[in-house]
Amino acid sequence: MTARHLDAPVVGLDLGGTKIAAALVGPDGTVLARHTLPTPATEGAEAVLDALAVAARAVRGHGSAAIGVAAAGVIDPVTGTVTSATDTIRGWAGTALAAGLAVRTGLPVACDNDVRAAAATELDGPDDDAGLLYAAVGTGVGGAVAASGRMLHGAAGIAGHLGHLPSPEADGLPCTCGATGHLEAVAAGPAITAHCARLGGAPADRLQTVAARAAEGDPHATAAITLGARATGRVLGGLANALGPHRVVVAGGVPRIGPLYWDALCAAFAAELMPPLRDLRPRPPRGGADAAVLGAAALPRTLPLHHPHTTGAPS
Amino acid sequence: MTARHLDAPVVGLDLGGTKIAAALVGPDGTVLARHTLPTPATEGAEAVLDALAVAARAVRGHGSAAIGVAAAGVIDPVTGTVTSATDTIRGWAGTALAAGLAVRTGLPVACDNDVRAAAATELDGPDDDAGLLYAAVGTGVGGAVAASGRMLHGAAGIAGHLGHLPSPEADGLPCTCGATGHLEAVAAGPAITAHCARLGGAPADRLQTVAARAAEGDPHATAAITLGARATGRVLGGLANALGPHRVVVAGGVPRIGPLYWDALCAAFAAELMPPLRDLRPRPPRGGADAAVLGAAALPRTLPLHHPHTTGAPS
Repeated sequence: MTARHLDAPVVGLDLGGTKIAAALVGPDGTVLARHTLPTPATEGAEAVLDALAVAARAVRGHGSAAIGVAAAGVIDPVTGTVTSATDTIRGWAGTALAAGLAVRTGLPVACDNDVRAAAATELDGPDDDAGLLYAAVGTGVGGAVAASGRMLHGAAGIAGHLGHLPSPEADGLPCTCGATGHLEAVAAGPAITAHCARLGGAPADRLQTVAARAAEGDPHATAAITLGARATGRVLGGLANALGPHRVVVAGGVPRIGPLYWDALCAAFAAELMPPLRDLRPRPPRGGADAAVLGAAALPRTLPLHHPHTTGAPS
Repeated sequence: MTARHLDAPVVGLDLGGTKIAAALVGPDGTVLARHTLPTPATEGAEAVLDALAVAARAVRGHGSAAIGVAAAGVIDPVTGTVTSATDTIRGWAGTALAAGLAVRTGLPVACDNDVRAAAATELDGPDDDAGLLYAAVGTGVGGAVAASGRMLHGAAGIAGHLGHLPSPEADGLPCTCGATGHLEAVAAGPAITAHCARLGGAPADRLQTVAARAAEGDPHATAAITLGARATGRVLGGLANALGPHRVVVAGGVPRIGPLYWDALCAAFAAELMPPLRDLRPRPPRGGADAAVLGAAALPRTLPLHHPHTTGAPS
């Protein structure tokens, strides 16, 4: 799809399980206004759509051209619906996200998965034809893949689920998706925390506790973190062989553990690579906390727009 | 890249380690002439380029528009060179394939990897925007990936090396690429043959021997084949989660073992899939023995053309 030029500001909405971040973003990428409000996650999909509309109204000036929504879950930008989702937001799977928000705001709406929207900010605008492999390692392991500068969406919008590849380090461990032995089962934050206890470490409630113990030299904590990092590095290295990306980015809360994590990740990644890729190295995202909301505001430039007051196909 | 319309016949060349197959293919896909000759693999790259030119001359009629070459190895269609290759053809890595053949024939030349060229015949022409995951399981494990109907080439033309992802079933086994634990090390034909012996089976010289023993109920042969099939199914299922293809094709000599192989492959594949993909199933290629040469003849429609008598950028 060719990039659409929009010369009026666009509303970007980043919908997470706990908060909605809204920004009005000018054509040059400047944030002109911001608003944040809690996600009414337990109140169901209609309440969340209402809250998204409130957030959009709080930032939209005169003449805003469209809304872009970056949301958790598997999102299909073509139908504008939530293909599947966990129950972080009650009843979220199946929601007609784009149509519901277009009707509430009177503006055309484009939507996509939040990780894919953030990943798009790692590309240098519409003329960047790089291949990108982007992993987001946090509560789960997600990601995004771009080829020739275009984000892959895949059937039902599922592309980017990098956490659901088989990982030798995860063999036999149950995954959140119902399968067994997937990367997410050993590499996500909760998985590292659980693995630390399995190795004989004292139970920890969160990854930060495990990271703090590793910093003090605790061998179980160190082993659990390096195992998660190594598993991630191996799968990303194998994916690099299969896809030939020009850039590999590892984002999310888990990599913020620091050098212990990055050293194991990069060594495992490098060991997998075929010779023509030997200069490729994973790096942290260059985008900051605004990546998802800026990526959301960019969605109407490239994705189908769902218009209010129509029931036909998106434009 | 937009598809180029060519209304004259195109020469398709399929370069393998033992033979060169040439066909003159009309704009409607009809084969108008054929020629086959041995690959002078031990005589080096110049001799192979000479043989390719001989094969092209043998089939080209008056007015053939271009040559498409599908060749083994990692091929970069943009530079027209062989990025890397095994020594099946002596000195093949680094060869200026497109330029060398253009100079010898006076025709513009487009080139790509042979598996990618064959995989492209699984797409229904230039208007098919499906995502495709195509594995070729034979002496090695290769493949191709298409998104929105376009083949991914990746950095240095490496995209499609599906055999070099980590496989739990291959843990600790050395891979031909120099790394350890890759899918190819347990799923390629020679890997299955070697694994049968490792399990305690009598040594076999080739996969067909192992397949014949499995058909007679030999447990070691059966175990080695199902292990290779399961490993392939798991990695392809994980890749499907990451990429969201609309079609998954498993080609090559190994799947021709039959139902023992396919049943294990399909069961392992299905067990990996995330819920939105649950209807996806691997299937054999629909293209026959002509797939590579027909795919080769289609390359000049979409890939950069390298012209004779110029040293500039391809058109």
